[in-house]
Amino acid sequence: MQSQFEPPSGTRDFLAAEYEEREQAFGIIRSVFSRYGYEPLQTPAFERLDVLLGKYGDEGDKLVFKILRRGEHEASGEADLALRYDLTVPLARVAAAYEGQLPSPYKRYAMGPVWRADRPGKGRFREFVQCDLDTLGSASILADAEALCAQHDALAELGIPEFTIQVNSRHILSGLLEACKIPAELGDGVLTSLDKLDKLRPDAVAAELAGRGLAEADAGELVAMMTAPDAVDRIRAVLKPSEEGVAGLEQVDELLALVTAQAPPGRFAFTPRLVRGLSYYTGPIWEVAAPGTATSIGSGGRYDHLIAQLGGPDTPATGSSLGVERILSLLPASSAFQRGRLDVAVTIMSEELEGESFGLAAAARAAGLRASVYLGASGKLGKQLKWASDQGARWCLIYGPRERESGAVKVRDMLSREETDVPVADIGSHLSYAEAGQHG
Amino acid sequence: MQSQFEPPSGTRDFLAAEYEEREQAFGIIRSVFSRYGYEPLQTPAFERLDVLLGKYGDEGDKLVFKILRRGEHEASGEADLALRYDLTVPLARVAAAYEGQLPSPYKRYAMGPVWRADRPGKGRFREFVQCDLDTLGSASILADAEALCAQHDALAELGIPEFTIQVNSRHILSGLLEACKIPAELGDGVLTSLDKLDKLRPDAVAAELAGRGLAEADAGELVAMMTAPDAVDRIRAVLKPSEEGVAGLEQVDELLALVTAQAPPGRFAFTPRLVRGLSYYTGPIWEVAAPGTATSIGSGGRYDHLIAQLGGPDTPATGSSLGVERILSLLPASSAFQRGRLDVAVTIMSEELEGESFGLAAAARAAGLRASVYLGASGKLGKQLKWASDQGARWCLIYGPRERESGAVKVRDMLSREETDVPVADIGSHLSYAEAGQHG
Repeated sequence: MQSQFEPPSGTRDFLAAEYEEREQAFGIIRSVFSRYGYEPLQTPAFERLDVLLGKYGDEGDKLVFKILRRGEHEASGEADLALRYDLTVPLARVAAAYEGQLPSPYKRYAMGPVWRADRPGKGRFREFVQCDLDTLGSASILADAEALCAQHDALAELGIPEFTIQVNSRHILSGLLEACKIPAELGDGVLTSLDKLDKLRPDAVAAELAGRGLAEADAGELVAMMTAPDAVDRIRAVLKPSEEGVAGLEQVDELLALVTAQAPPGRFAFTPRLVRGLSYYTGPIWEVAAPGTATSIGSGGRYDHLIAQLGGPDTPATGSSLGVERILSLLPASSAFQRGRLDVAVTIMSEELEGESFGLAAAARAAGLRASVYLGASGKLGKQLKWASDQGARWCLIYGPRERESGAVKVRDMLSREETDVPVADIGSHLSYAEAGQHG
Repeated sequence: MQSQFEPPSGTRDFLAAEYEEREQAFGIIRSVFSRYGYEPLQTPAFERLDVLLGKYGDEGDKLVFKILRRGEHEASGEADLALRYDLTVPLARVAAAYEGQLPSPYKRYAMGPVWRADRPGKGRFREFVQCDLDTLGSASILADAEALCAQHDALAELGIPEFTIQVNSRHILSGLLEACKIPAELGDGVLTSLDKLDKLRPDAVAAELAGRGLAEADAGELVAMMTAPDAVDRIRAVLKPSEEGVAGLEQVDELLALVTAQAPPGRFAFTPRLVRGLSYYTGPIWEVAAPGTATSIGSGGRYDHLIAQLGGPDTPATGSSLGVERILSLLPASSAFQRGRLDVAVTIMSEELEGESFGLAAAARAAGLRASVYLGASGKLGKQLKWASDQGARWCLIYGPRERESGAVKVRDMLSREETDVPVADIGSHLSYAEAGQHG
């Protein structure tokens, strides 16, 4: 492709096959979320700059695509709008805007593009689809359980072959820091290091912890406990003196009891070393791991104060997010477009037969099939059959002077090359019968 | 709504009911277009600035939302990207980018938001959905006929009660100028004035024509001919000496013969005074008029050189565009969300019954129904029934200690208030039977 015709860096054109594959996946996700009673929300592509800025930290703010003011203000070089960076800040704005009009709790999903001026890399885009479901206004653990199960069901129905949802709680992590007598000022750093236990070797993490100011022996002990085969039991024991830790354990146990009852065995796992970098989580947290990708394909958790921090009302909240772009890359190529662009291709053998051929295509459409007449300039049957074949058509309707005289269309099976004469008036029913036979 | 929480000027938040209505309409359009063998194309929200600018004239360029450069370049106040202004310039870019890889002819549809920094007004938005279908690479009148019929079928299936597609040809208009011996330099202006015959009184248009330099008698005669009850016949007669005019008439006759055969009577009408302001049309042109709106709800035509002018390959092209935002405003309110957010609401009567109630909701979902447990904090049945009613639930499953003991759920019909005891194990089949009964 000549570079001047490429889509802008980090963005993509979706031609038919890829578009259909993506829409098919999005449709599955929507239908699962809707079954759980989450309702759709769509917000504009851009927000006022002040709504977006200051919500994602300095690093995030740098990645926001800003829109130049218009008209006489354009020359100022200032921006007043910006493309949305995620779906959560718009949710906070909507929760504030329609307070009192939204159902309570407000269970919503959103699926749409967001834009980040990130350095585009392998599998990293500047325009990509996010997919979130959230419940605002419920402190119930059942809301967390629904978010987990809806995420689970969506992944299962998409056909992700094997995946595990790792579950932990911020309260367990806080309890752990408390029980291990880790000074409060080291807490966040220690958790950040522990979060690397799925990527780094235990001794590397221990060294990092020591570097953060933990006594070497304590660092080694902590890492040993977190990575032991019986880590869960050891952590349960260690947490006993911490009220918050015990409460966190009870919460995770309750949550796991709710969700494991609704899924095949082994899908959910209590994972004490799961931290989730984002500091806004306040209760259960989770992350989806799948074979074939080092990064998670989904995540979620409870974030009871974030909506207020983002400018919305102060409301408890929990939700799941699916990494749809990563998920799409894991799905086997769909067969959506393997059946070709057309079901039925119709020849145009001469100008005076145009109208009748056009009518044959209409009859095929009325029978629910995708049909088109030949739009090229060649009157040669061979050329037109090649076009029918390029379109992946299942049948080609040949209608020339001889067919007109006999009142019967030649229906060519493009796979077997068999040809059948079908009376013009019967073409719709003939094709729908043939189509039904093919699929079932 | 407090103004700081409103979406940006000219944009909209789509909450569930409106979102579902829109998606339902979009789904109908997609399915019609697909039946004609048009394939979907999705391009990024933004393009490089040089791809967009200079393509829409000075007035258009002013309405483009420009995106500020990022990082160290932000301070320059310069833009390098811009939100797409329509779907045609991206099509031209794609046609150039994937030349040789696209099917020939390339029949594609696109439906998605475009952005224009227009002054927002009643029914005018800065973010709105456009919906185009186009065929690149075919000079055949059949391609025009398909574009017309697909547009027609989409409007019919959407349920637009009455509409007329007015058809004309640029060749007829050129022929008319030639036959009436209107000086070439006045041609465009004369057509612009004639285009106003559907809005202004004939004498106002005649005066405008005279103002443009036409002799008063000629102007009056031209307007009289165009507005006469037998305008079509008179124009046919007048066009006889013009080769281009006669060719245009033949083309329109052929086109109308093709499309009227596939539609109810009266849907298509040869309308010689139809001009379509845009100068890029080169053959047949059309516009859809519907009662209840003064502006057209769709349009189209052949534009054989535009793709090259927009930076794409030099290819014949034709297509239709649906004014979906206007069409949506004409549709009767859909019943999509009148059936409530939920089919099934499930009570949570105590913490220890949570798991079983959660399982009941899962059983309802497995039966294909939209179901949710109560996520609030009240243990009172009355409050929970009110929630079920607010959700528009058809059934409420009541499961308390007594129901657990008996092993039967109370299924409350939220309309009749009748309650039925259903064994826990049968709840899925009971609900799917009840649901089927309701709709069947």
